[in-house]
Amino acid sequence: MSFSRDNLKGFILALISSGFIGASFIIKKKGLRRAAAASGVRAGVGGYSYLMEPLWWLGMITMIIGEVANFVAYAFAPAVLVTPLGALSIIVSAVLAHFMLNEKLHQLGILGCIMCIAGSIIIVIHAPQEQPILSVQEIWIMATQPSFLLYVGSVVILVFILVFHFAPQYGHTNVLVFTGICSLMGSLSVMSVKALGTSLKLTFEGNNQLIYPETWFFMLIVAICVIMQMNYLNKALDTFNTAIVSPIYYVLFTSLTILASVIMFKDWDGQNAGTIISEICAFIVVLSGTILLHATKDFERSSSFRGNYSQLSPTLSSRLCNGNGDSPQHEEQNEP
Amino acid sequence: MSFSRDNLKGFILALISSGFIGASFIIKKKGLRRAAAASGVRAGVGGYSYLMEPLWWLGMITMIIGEVANFVAYAFAPAVLVTPLGALSIIVSAVLAHFMLNEKLHQLGILGCIMCIAGSIIIVIHAPQEQPILSVQEIWIMATQPSFLLYVGSVVILVFILVFHFAPQYGHTNVLVFTGICSLMGSLSVMSVKALGTSLKLTFEGNNQLIYPETWFFMLIVAICVIMQMNYLNKALDTFNTAIVSPIYYVLFTSLTILASVIMFKDWDGQNAGTIISEICAFIVVLSGTILLHATKDFERSSSFRGNYSQLSPTLSSRLCNGNGDSPQHEEQNEP
Repeated sequence: MSFSRDNLKGFILALISSGFIGASFIIKKKGLRRAAAASGVRAGVGGYSYLMEPLWWLGMITMIIGEVANFVAYAFAPAVLVTPLGALSIIVSAVLAHFMLNEKLHQLGILGCIMCIAGSIIIVIHAPQEQPILSVQEIWIMATQPSFLLYVGSVVILVFILVFHFAPQYGHTNVLVFTGICSLMGSLSVMSVKALGTSLKLTFEGNNQLIYPETWFFMLIVAICVIMQMNYLNKALDTFNTAIVSPIYYVLFTSLTILASVIMFKDWDGQNAGTIISEICAFIVVLSGTILLHATKDFERSSSFRGNYSQLSPTLSSRLCNGNGDSPQHEEQNEP
Repeated sequence: MSFSRDNLKGFILALISSGFIGASFIIKKKGLRRAAAASGVRAGVGGYSYLMEPLWWLGMITMIIGEVANFVAYAFAPAVLVTPLGALSIIVSAVLAHFMLNEKLHQLGILGCIMCIAGSIIIVIHAPQEQPILSVQEIWIMATQPSFLLYVGSVVILVFILVFHFAPQYGHTNVLVFTGICSLMGSLSVMSVKALGTSLKLTFEGNNQLIYPETWFFMLIVAICVIMQMNYLNKALDTFNTAIVSPIYYVLFTSLTILASVIMFKDWDGQNAGTIISEICAFIVVLSGTILLHATKDFERSSSFRGNYSQLSPTLSSRLCNGNGDSPQHEEQNEP
């Protein structure tokens, strides 16, 4: 277990992030309920009384703290470590919902939680150690290596085909179109967030990177990718049931992010086959746990906990956009 | 991934064993169905027409081959590797039942299979390498070390308390009493099977161990443990539903066997913390997968596949004893 100090920092930040993001959904939901009880109008129906509810704002702040921690985690630890740990926020919100919102967790849901934790531990143990990065130019060299440019090129072409060819025809019938677009863009978001985060980390350490155009370029890429991702995540959530979108999005987004990170940061170079296979298996376990949690969510309670799709996204804005997290439209779709 | 030749042999034997044992249940069940169709009397109701059915005997032979492979696997690889792989026979029988008996696998059952496979791969990757054993006396020294004698002593005392104090009062109401007795004895069965198997392996290699009284002592212990285990497994299965007994038995039996093996063969000595934690997590994943498979078995089909409890046992006799594997008593209990 060769766990570097930076990996440990990133790991702890990812845990804090999952805790805050998981808790934020519960706090916001409590705020929404209280606002609805006070005004008689629900947020999804057009009421904005939740904006007067301090609990809702507390949830919002909790989420922002979680997002910032997540952003900083990427600056310290490899995406292969940070991204799958996002699943832990689902556990936090499921457990908190069980105790605080009285939304009982199904027995198989508990099994899903155990799996997510077991898989996460194996991922953490086998996480690769990244080479220390000393300047934004180093990241620029990684980002412009032929194999990563090939990845970026493939993603851009795929997104174009999906947006202009498939979206108009199948976007509203096949869940993979919108989810695919935001997962593909999501993998680029994380890579650019990681580049930007590392540059800012270096800047804070006294090694100013803002003088280099590469830093500003990465900032631009972050903005473009995050807006695209956010836009199509909202389309996916508007069109399909959260319970269907969430696990598919999590699987696609996490897989593509790991692929992108392995290509760009060569996370798996110098690791032996056994370690890589263990990581992949552990990742499959976390995915299965996530799917199990989502699948069993609606087994016993018809009005299940909504809105925890967005902790699967690495971006703050996509969450702000779906901030109220409790739209009756999704709930209606979910009724059998 | 330091995988010794002996570990590889043990691994392949364990895979073959799971394949044969998993298939045997399907073949026997097909035989039972055919016999019932021909005679009009079911096995559980007292019919013995299945003894005239070649398919049932083919299933029996398949099972014996699987059991022998399992026995030999223990002679080559550590119990920490061989025992959890027993879960794969559940997958084989579930998949074969899906295709050959038309007993549809629930979607979450497929997830359970994926988990069992992913967990098994991680276990195999992290399996410890055993010191080569050169004579039965070496095993004798391991078996008589104070820590293992303490384990054996605790097991014997616990079994006595369970048999004489708890069994009469709670045996028929608490599933843990009978299941606990056969799991505790099962861990000793595996250790003695491993001792005997290693002695026989050495004998076949030309290094005769039958001249030592220790070999015959281990043979006696195998017989005693297996008979005890078999007896209480039957009691558990007669009293409770197979679907409840199987996962509990698998969890208890595999955990105790790993504990016994770690104490006696010092499987975890010289392994780093990360490897041991990975093994434990992977083991938890396999257990969760097994529980998921069992839990979802009855989701869609009321008449679910019975009789695959016994591949969880390491002993041939316990299976021979429940050979017909399709008692109407259990099926009745299983109806909601």
